[in-house]
Amino acid sequence: MDQDQCTDVHTVKKLQDIAEKLRIFSIRSTDASKSGYPTLCSVAEVISVLFFHTMRYTVEDPEHPNNDRLVLSKGHAAPIMHAIWAEDGCFSESELLKLGRIDSDLEGHPTPRLNFLDVATGSLGQALSCAAGMAYTGKYFDKSNSHVFCLIGKSAEGSIWEAMSFASHYKLDNLVAILDVNRSEQREQTVFQHDLDIYKARAEAFGWITLIVDGHNVVELAKTFWAATQARGKPTCIVAKTYEGHGIPEIVDDKNCHGNLLEAKSETVIKFVKEKIVNRGPDGIVPVESFLSLKLTNTSVQLASPPAYRLGENVDIRQAYGTALVKVGESSDAIVVLDGDTNDSTFSKMFKDAFPDRFVECFLAEQSLVGVATGCAWRERTIPIVSGLACCLARALDQIRLAAASQTNMTFSGSHCGVSHKALEDLSMFSSIPGSIVFYPSDAVSTQRAVELAANIRGICFIRITSRSSVPVIYSNEEPFAVGKAKIVRQSNNDQVTIVASCVTLFEAIKAAESLAASGVNIRIIDPFTIKPIDVATIIASAQQTGGRIITAEDHYAEGGIGSAVSLALSEHPNIVIRRLFVPEVPHDGPFEELLDRYGINAASIIKEVKSITSSTHARN
Amino acid sequence: MDQDQCTDVHTVKKLQDIAEKLRIFSIRSTDASKSGYPTLCSVAEVISVLFFHTMRYTVEDPEHPNNDRLVLSKGHAAPIMHAIWAEDGCFSESELLKLGRIDSDLEGHPTPRLNFLDVATGSLGQALSCAAGMAYTGKYFDKSNSHVFCLIGKSAEGSIWEAMSFASHYKLDNLVAILDVNRSEQREQTVFQHDLDIYKARAEAFGWITLIVDGHNVVELAKTFWAATQARGKPTCIVAKTYEGHGIPEIVDDKNCHGNLLEAKSETVIKFVKEKIVNRGPDGIVPVESFLSLKLTNTSVQLASPPAYRLGENVDIRQAYGTALVKVGESSDAIVVLDGDTNDSTFSKMFKDAFPDRFVECFLAEQSLVGVATGCAWRERTIPIVSGLACCLARALDQIRLAAASQTNMTFSGSHCGVSHKALEDLSMFSSIPGSIVFYPSDAVSTQRAVELAANIRGICFIRITSRSSVPVIYSNEEPFAVGKAKIVRQSNNDQVTIVASCVTLFEAIKAAESLAASGVNIRIIDPFTIKPIDVATIIASAQQTGGRIITAEDHYAEGGIGSAVSLALSEHPNIVIRRLFVPEVPHDGPFEELLDRYGINAASIIKEVKSITSSTHARN
Repeated sequence: MDQDQCTDVHTVKKLQDIAEKLRIFSIRSTDASKSGYPTLCSVAEVISVLFFHTMRYTVEDPEHPNNDRLVLSKGHAAPIMHAIWAEDGCFSESELLKLGRIDSDLEGHPTPRLNFLDVATGSLGQALSCAAGMAYTGKYFDKSNSHVFCLIGKSAEGSIWEAMSFASHYKLDNLVAILDVNRSEQREQTVFQHDLDIYKARAEAFGWITLIVDGHNVVELAKTFWAATQARGKPTCIVAKTYEGHGIPEIVDDKNCHGNLLEAKSETVIKFVKEKIVNRGPDGIVPVESFLSLKLTNTSVQLASPPAYRLGENVDIRQAYGTALVKVGESSDAIVVLDGDTNDSTFSKMFKDAFPDRFVECFLAEQSLVGVATGCAWRERTIPIVSGLACCLARALDQIRLAAASQTNMTFSGSHCGVSHKALEDLSMFSSIPGSIVFYPSDAVSTQRAVELAANIRGICFIRITSRSSVPVIYSNEEPFAVGKAKIVRQSNNDQVTIVASCVTLFEAIKAAESLAASGVNIRIIDPFTIKPIDVATIIASAQQTGGRIITAEDHYAEGGIGSAVSLALSEHPNIVIRRLFVPEVPHDGPFEELLDRYGINAASIIKEVKSITSSTHARN
Repeated sequence: MDQDQCTDVHTVKKLQDIAEKLRIFSIRSTDASKSGYPTLCSVAEVISVLFFHTMRYTVEDPEHPNNDRLVLSKGHAAPIMHAIWAEDGCFSESELLKLGRIDSDLEGHPTPRLNFLDVATGSLGQALSCAAGMAYTGKYFDKSNSHVFCLIGKSAEGSIWEAMSFASHYKLDNLVAILDVNRSEQREQTVFQHDLDIYKARAEAFGWITLIVDGHNVVELAKTFWAATQARGKPTCIVAKTYEGHGIPEIVDDKNCHGNLLEAKSETVIKFVKEKIVNRGPDGIVPVESFLSLKLTNTSVQLASPPAYRLGENVDIRQAYGTALVKVGESSDAIVVLDGDTNDSTFSKMFKDAFPDRFVECFLAEQSLVGVATGCAWRERTIPIVSGLACCLARALDQIRLAAASQTNMTFSGSHCGVSHKALEDLSMFSSIPGSIVFYPSDAVSTQRAVELAANIRGICFIRITSRSSVPVIYSNEEPFAVGKAKIVRQSNNDQVTIVASCVTLFEAIKAAESLAASGVNIRIIDPFTIKPIDVATIIASAQQTGGRIITAEDHYAEGGIGSAVSLALSEHPNIVIRRLFVPEVPHDGPFEELLDRYGINAASIIKEVKSITSSTHARN
């Protein structure tokens, strides 16, 4: 592919023809579904040139890791992506008309239900981070020479600038962002109208090569895209001036057209567009084969050696986490670890030191951190583990939601949880993610196993990491762990209450149990290990053996943590009373022991609750 | 205050002396608390010059709306802020030594428990949006000539750039950002080291006047701050080059010093610093009085006229929401509405059209949207109502958490909720916020009352807005509504099951009830109105009258919605069985009715569940 091809008359005409066809496809499919944004065919020329001139990929193997990729930040432009693949022969035109139907995988926004789309996007401004993660993976892990293109409609979201900063810092010259400045942002005209120099100045200030182009001129587009692929040492941002509804005379640049269907106007519009097409048959431009082949990484993950602790010794759970990262990293070169400039706090530094080439520093920008990780997980090129402070991950909830929708295998760990660092919504946030698995390990052994299990689970996992130096090891190195399987930590044959608690509150429960035992009251203690799913069978069996009484105690707010999980699990099981101890308000600063006392989740509070619940009429009467 | 004062030898010496004193205070208080970041006294000169030369404020009335304000984005620099106010005579030096104790309001990060701090910050990069909201309020609502200064330590977070864009768009020339480039970011040196030109280029590209200054030179600082206060039409960004630990020879610019205590070194360091102070007595520089007085806005909010609908008519709940915004806006000029470029989708456009001067367009940048609203709520200058799409608010969870910690009176509404727009975690997210109130109105009348109630509640409120045209009015215009009070929508004296459902699923339950009644089975239907708090008494009473059987049905995921709220509320009440209907996975695109059916939350699903629960042994046997 050389630059001269861009001016070949035959090629130019064909690219223009394809753009018109894409325009028709997108009008027809959105009309058929009565939803979508047909006017977004303003990017028809951009897409046509990218897919039929610039990009190198194998139609027969859309998942090939060496294919160039296009990531749609403009998620609602999905219909035109579908149209591309119809044009490429992947499915019939009639399939396109099923857009948005419940029996069709062609949805209004791109999702990876379709094997040629990589990440679910559509939540504005997230895709560039994902594209940066793909480009990082291509350049540094796969050492491929493929390119990642990202088509962006709006740039107001701060996540865009986090990604811009990441990409230039890591010299991602295989990344090309195309900013479609179409002068429409919902019903308002965008802030900057068509003042492209503002976009140019910003992108340049963030370290990108920046090129301005007429987004409807296929020759200019072809030359500019070609120039972008020749960049060295910097990512390229192409600022494309377009008009919404270009090529459709009835609506071009009409500020009321975004999101409206053409409906009655459709046939007239299609007729007009069709007449502009010269070559209606197969267009003769064959996508260029990509030419690298890669070995796939080993995606079966295990701890390279079992945990090696002494029962009763004190181990900071972060230390166990860092050790586990190194061990799973030894077993599989698919494991990569990302952190947002907190690697010494989260102990992901241990992985960084062991495998510097597989550690990605994302600096203090959590949205970018999660987006990049999603991109790294692309096509299962890697298994990313994202380390952060539990409270900071809240910054990236929307990115985590989209990662879930992308069916990504991705594990998060959140350190500095609980009352001492005011991270008290983390279990709730991760539990609300569809299909997520939420681990809350109580000691070093179970933490190592949580990392091992999480790395093998397809979907979003969260591991809550307690950051305290004085956590005793309570499980032997051989203890087996499984998702949804609780451990009974203490029991007798005359237990009167079941306590469900994890880590900090588990140890408070043990203290409470010892004190109560001295006065002749025995209690059972359950460590759930995973909060979602929670081990319903074990908890019910225990409750039935302890007078139908359960107390949950957790270093978390009332909603979405251990108490919630237990209440939900038992909602269909009457005859069980659940009392819940939790942190009821935004906590004050203070020494840890005083905080546990003030917010009622220490041994004394548990003892008080045990006495209260056993003195009231119990559930089974 | 004129520029010449900056060079007065006496003033310069005093400002430098104060900087040294602040340095000592911060060392002593962090030593006493064994935590904190004493090395952050790198900003001692910046703070000294701001508070004792540049800023105009009344020490006796720290809450006065015309005071110039400093917002700390560098939240962990709180000890130096405490020291300032001790220096100003607000409390004794001995009070400072209680930093971080549970009995002291001097916490490691700033919180509004102290009446001279405005917003809880410390989650990095949020404060500039808050400061921009304060500046917007000062300039456009209060028409004050006060200034807002914002001291920023890190600029990697994308939220910074959203705020930068907002501030320049609205020409906030009363806003001054001070970027403390101290070349330390946790254990890593920052990406750009001391390359100040990169920061300058970025801030300028985002439309700010940008000035570079030596952050340890009080003369330069005074001149630069003075210049910033003279800016017209643009906000000013001051890039200050500093060294962490400046003035403390043992640790200056030592990359390992961040977060470490001086401890043993303290006395030597303090001795060294003290010797540099010439004037140890009261320094003689009196803060300048601010000179405007303002009328306070009316903060008692009600609907200017009651709802005016016909029972049974179909009204889109967004329409009722927009109408209610206008009505509360008529009753109180404190009400301001913010939106992120979705005002025609959320119907906040109705308020925009009625009160254009009290509508703030924040464009597609939700983190900035919420941060600006927090700033607008500052000192109760306004009561902000933030309108957005339910799914987009997830982008700003961390900002919402901090708004809650700031005890802000702020209401959020989320439209386009539920299975049709894939916003299925919103109830969970807002329920997990401490102290929040979560409304889920089912018709137009209850929606108007929800807006009225929310506007009067101190804390975070969320109103879930269903975006469908065919929602019938089921309550009379006179119906009273209250937080935590459910409505029994349908009952008989032989109901066999209680259904708890809101809006979409409430109407499905009504359909189910009509169908079941035809076959002789009566069911009770409860509309909870608020999901948090939920009306425990009404639900328990109903359950007891309906065989101990409850079914919840909701257009939300399993966690954190109606089913969760009911299960948690009843966790201590045995003899009640709860079955839950919810959306179990990331939904497919498709027509609404088909989605309700596929995910099991329509009338047919409710009928099936009623038959199942009544045929099994019921709870009270």
